[in-house]
Amino acid sequence: MKAQAILRPLTEGDRPVWQSLWDGYCAFYKVRLPAPVIDGLWEKLTSGDPAIHGMLAESAETGEALGLMHYVLHPHTWSLKTVCYLEDLFVTEAARGQGVGRALIEWLAARGRDEGWFRLYWHTDEDNETARLLYDRVAGPATMVRYAIPLTK
Amino acid sequence: MKAQAILRPLTEGDRPVWQSLWDGYCAFYKVRLPAPVIDGLWEKLTSGDPAIHGMLAESAETGEALGLMHYVLHPHTWSLKTVCYLEDLFVTEAARGQGVGRALIEWLAARGRDEGWFRLYWHTDEDNETARLLYDRVAGPATMVRYAIPLTK
Amino acid sequence: MKAQAILRPLTEGDRPVWQSLWDGYCAFYKVRLPAPVIDGLWEKLTSGDPAIHGMLAESAETGEALGLMHYVLHPHTWSLKTVCYLEDLFVTEAARGQGVGRALIEWLAARGRDEGWFRLYWHTDEDNETARLLYDRVAGPATMVRYAIPLTK
Amino acid sequence: MKAQAILRPLTEGDRPVWQSLWDGYCAFYKVRLPAPVIDGLWEKLTSGDPAIHGMLAESAETGEALGLMHYVLHPHTWSLKTVCYLEDLFVTEAARGQGVGRALIEWLAARGRDEGWFRLYWHTDEDNETARLLYDRVAGPATMVRYAIPLTK
Repeated sequence: MKAQAILRPLTEGDRPVWQSLWDGYCAFYKVRLPAPVIDGLWEKLTSGDPAIHGMLAESAETGEALGLMHYVLHPHTWSLKTVCYLEDLFVTEAARGQGVGRALIEWLAARGRDEGWFRLYWHTDEDNETARLLYDRVAGPATMVRYAIPLTK
Repeated sequence: MKAQAILRPLTEGDRPVWQSLWDGYCAFYKVRLPAPVIDGLWEKLTSGDPAIHGMLAESAETGEALGLMHYVLHPHTWSLKTVCYLEDLFVTEAARGQGVGRALIEWLAARGRDEGWFRLYWHTDEDNETARLLYDRVAGPATMVRYAIPLTK
Repeated sequence: MKAQAILRPLTEGDRPVWQSLWDGYCAFYKVRLPAPVIDGLWEKLTSGDPAIHGMLAESAETGEALGLMHYVLHPHTWSLKTVCYLEDLFVTEAARGQGVGRALIEWLAARGRDEGWFRLYWHTDEDNETARLLYDRVAGPATMVRYAIPLTK
Repeated sequence: MKAQAILRPLTEGDRPVWQSLWDGYCAFYKVRLPAPVIDGLWEKLTSGDPAIHGMLAESAETGEALGLMHYVLHPHTWSLKTVCYLEDLFVTEAARGQGVGRALIEWLAARGRDEGWFRLYWHTDEDNETARLLYDRVAGPATMVRYAIPLTK
């Protein structure tokens, strides 16, 4: 059964609910971010930075938080249009399997069609099988791999 | 034997050499970009847009063009630092196998360490075996896959 | 009497109406922009670039174009919030004196409050008396002057 | 007599010297910024954000800090080129009148010519007479005034 989810942009009053979702996300990936990085991310998400945005999914019935999405906009070289990098997608354990993640991705694709973005992309671990089942359905099979070099000391 | 390559930023006078390298790149990927997209990309690369940059590799002896790299800078959510997306990397057929591509990536990683970027990343086709041999050496094995939804009509 | 104006973001289908308003704006300032600059500006406004945006004002009764506004978002140093630069504001001769310019500025200020921007600012010629009458009302007297050095050859 | 000043970009190790100059700047303008805003500004200046940059002026003889400049890059509508907003310029009391402020502005104008920026601009209070004497010399008389609406609560 599908949860009825309401999707809406993050605003300044959302810090507590955002914090609990972001903690869940970080716990899932077994990372601990320093407090200034979390504060700084919150600032970026709510200070009108045009390149970085957040969306909340909430239950239409109870108002309970169901999920969180962060996305980044940047130029690219193959067209004059902006591309959108869906960087973080998280659904609470209780709300998984009910279409919330899919609804967030589809909202973002629809927004991109309206705004004239060129492409929406995201990355996932090669062996994250649950996520890949969903992603194969909404985007077709992955054919590109990502290489990365960490640069900070 | 290694080519002695000089690496330098693109400037406004480089349109002819840039055009011939970019044509080579597009031919390699079997894409034809419309002229206004190519003109617009050239404008972005040379109009001081802080988010998008180009580098040329030239022979230290003959001045001949050996390779081209375009990169994009954007914010992300896991740190307050910028990340760098190496979007396009091209080495002419005559200059392949001589370390030019590697020199361009290493220049970019060094610049990123100086500037305080968080990470340098790029994508390649899962089955581009030649490129992956190099990328495995400079970045280790790829463990992330990329999903994408095209958004333009 | 106030015109009933509908304010809405520019979209890809608006090129003809945008072009006629932009021509009016350029004629007012006695500048002729080269065709590639106009095409490039149109591309930026409609390609999802998060830093640059356009709004149309149209008559609620006839659908006729009444005005145009372009604005730019950028970071600044006195707060972590984004600032908004209202770069161009134009109202057709027939629609002047009916509150269209004021409505566009007020829409932008309201949007800024929603998005969490720090400040909305714009420039005008010291001796543009008509514009300054409106601006004194919506923003109070100007106390800052702008210096500029042209950099292109 | 002119001070021999060395101008160089801010890097991560410069926090103490930057802090003392920024404190001097804020004292001059009689503003107190909250600590998280100062920390966040430092992060932006040193995390590779391509839109915001800082430069230090140091004495060539003693290494002592003489001045500080922050600048912001953003798109605009009258050309496809980037514009540069010189947001903050500060010279220590001991170093005033020796050409340090002028050297910083001239360095920035030269960089802009290299990078292909369209224009360099900045604001000052209408009644800051000392600053306006310098600015009239480097940029000619100001003919534009700035209007602004504060948007934060």
